[in-house]
Amino acid sequence: MTNSSSEFDLIAEFFAPLATSPGAFGLKDDVALVAARAGHDLVVTTDTIVAGVDFFANDPPASIARKALRVNLSDLAAKGAEPFGYLLSLMLPKEIGRPFLKDFAAGLESDQTEFAVSLLGGDMSSTPGPPAISITAFGHIPVGRIVRRNGAREGDLVFVTGTIGDSGGGLALLENQAVSTSVETRTRLIARYRVPEPRVTFAPALRAASAAIDVSDGLLADLGHIADASGVRMELQAERIPLSPFLRDLWGDGVDAIARAATAGDDYEIAFTARSPTADARTAVTRIGKVTKGSGIVLLDAEGGEITVPRKGFVHF
Amino acid sequence: MTNSSSEFDLIAEFFAPLATSPGAFGLKDDVALVAARAGHDLVVTTDTIVAGVDFFANDPPASIARKALRVNLSDLAAKGAEPFGYLLSLMLPKEIGRPFLKDFAAGLESDQTEFAVSLLGGDMSSTPGPPAISITAFGHIPVGRIVRRNGAREGDLVFVTGTIGDSGGGLALLENQAVSTSVETRTRLIARYRVPEPRVTFAPALRAASAAIDVSDGLLADLGHIADASGVRMELQAERIPLSPFLRDLWGDGVDAIARAATAGDDYEIAFTARSPTADARTAVTRIGKVTKGSGIVLLDAEGGEITVPRKGFVHF
Repeated sequence: MTNSSSEFDLIAEFFAPLATSPGAFGLKDDVALVAARAGHDLVVTTDTIVAGVDFFANDPPASIARKALRVNLSDLAAKGAEPFGYLLSLMLPKEIGRPFLKDFAAGLESDQTEFAVSLLGGDMSSTPGPPAISITAFGHIPVGRIVRRNGAREGDLVFVTGTIGDSGGGLALLENQAVSTSVETRTRLIARYRVPEPRVTFAPALRAASAAIDVSDGLLADLGHIADASGVRMELQAERIPLSPFLRDLWGDGVDAIARAATAGDDYEIAFTARSPTADARTAVTRIGKVTKGSGIVLLDAEGGEITVPRKGFVHF
Repeated sequence: MTNSSSEFDLIAEFFAPLATSPGAFGLKDDVALVAARAGHDLVVTTDTIVAGVDFFANDPPASIARKALRVNLSDLAAKGAEPFGYLLSLMLPKEIGRPFLKDFAAGLESDQTEFAVSLLGGDMSSTPGPPAISITAFGHIPVGRIVRRNGAREGDLVFVTGTIGDSGGGLALLENQAVSTSVETRTRLIARYRVPEPRVTFAPALRAASAAIDVSDGLLADLGHIADASGVRMELQAERIPLSPFLRDLWGDGVDAIARAATAGDDYEIAFTARSPTADARTAVTRIGKVTKGSGIVLLDAEGGEITVPRKGFVHF
């Protein structure tokens, strides 16, 4: 810090106001207490985002914070769990300024209201590397209702919420690998890359699914995880994969656009299998294929021919 | 990775064997389930270590892993909680090799046995920066028995487990800011820097304390946190602060050695206040001072004069 505030001062100023749960002790202790909820299991998940990998160092700090939180809320939602709190580990360069922290905390505050979660605790370290944010999120689910990856069965249908590929389109625009003359297309796609919309409200309805996952690595890659874990094969109809008007404006309507969308990642929609359509009033759900005997995942064109995609999703290593 | 393994392969090979709890789902899902324990609260904490700040990039991978886990177990122990599991977020350069991961996982495995914990889940990302490891640890404590920072009262005594400053001595040796001709001194002090010994077994006895903290920032800084939170003053007798024979061999016996030890940090001993001595059979505990009215913390010499220390502990920002 340029003004020689210690991390204790910074935590007290920017983060303690977010710690509204009594078990967080106002961030004035080393741990948090998490109370049990009768009839519910506790569900936990952790995800880290790193500048230069998962976001751009010059993204607005509020949107970096919201992305860090939301990718975790997405994991909980994809299992049918409802979030209530999170732990935050911040790794920041020494020269980070107070304006960054102020905006970062404001982003968390607005998401805390939107998703009914509060900060339970955390940790703040200096790093000689790029900023990184690691969050552990906590949720509850009625006992025995968790939706795993391994429950898909032959005869189930395959569904996905919302639209796929928007975030990948936003990333391509930010990296100048795509160009759009439409301000709205550019704005909407970049917004989806920077601030995903986790399907938190869909979690209760999702408990009727046989298997589910959130789409973070790419639709094909993530459905591939379900296929592997469940010991089944999936056949997806390319033309049914839901693309937004903004993504169609950017990539067009062809098979190439669909293949890009289905491998782009960072969508934070929920892909799931179920015997019959599962929905709630607030969430668009599209049937995109079916579960069959066998293994792996195939993307079929309108004539039933297999579409080859170069890689199925993002891998770190 | 030089051999093009994805993070999914690496997790399956090196980390899934550590996920022995049923709620971890063999690391084959996005979340972990944490079962409630009757009559107990769940206690959680998170701490991150970064190469170049908290460890050296060329430290043995097994000791990096053990340090990352142990600093978190230390936080739980210092509140009276007993650990049972942890989540691991790994941020590693793309070029990290399998030998690193193999040794890293072996370090975790040996500590899992030693401390009766298991891996519940995690996340692995590439980073353009230095390696960093973020761990969230989970423990249980009988309801209502947590030992906070804010319970110290006038008339309490101040205690610390083990010896103070060894880790700081090890760091000074590694940074060539100190020299020792004794192989044993060098080995023992560096070992304490690299692999702290969290006071996990002391947690049940500690529940008799009025306030407690683990010594990570430095003895004076951390007791200062208790003094602040409790609204009290502490008077410490410098000559009672326990130094190991190895640290005395390095720094000598003088006031300067004590001041260095009390501000060095990374000890992962437990400093606490209590009305009367609190101990168990396995843990050395030394009375080092008393709690009085007022605020702040003073280090007194044998004649009762105040010893001025240049800074009380490590700060990141």
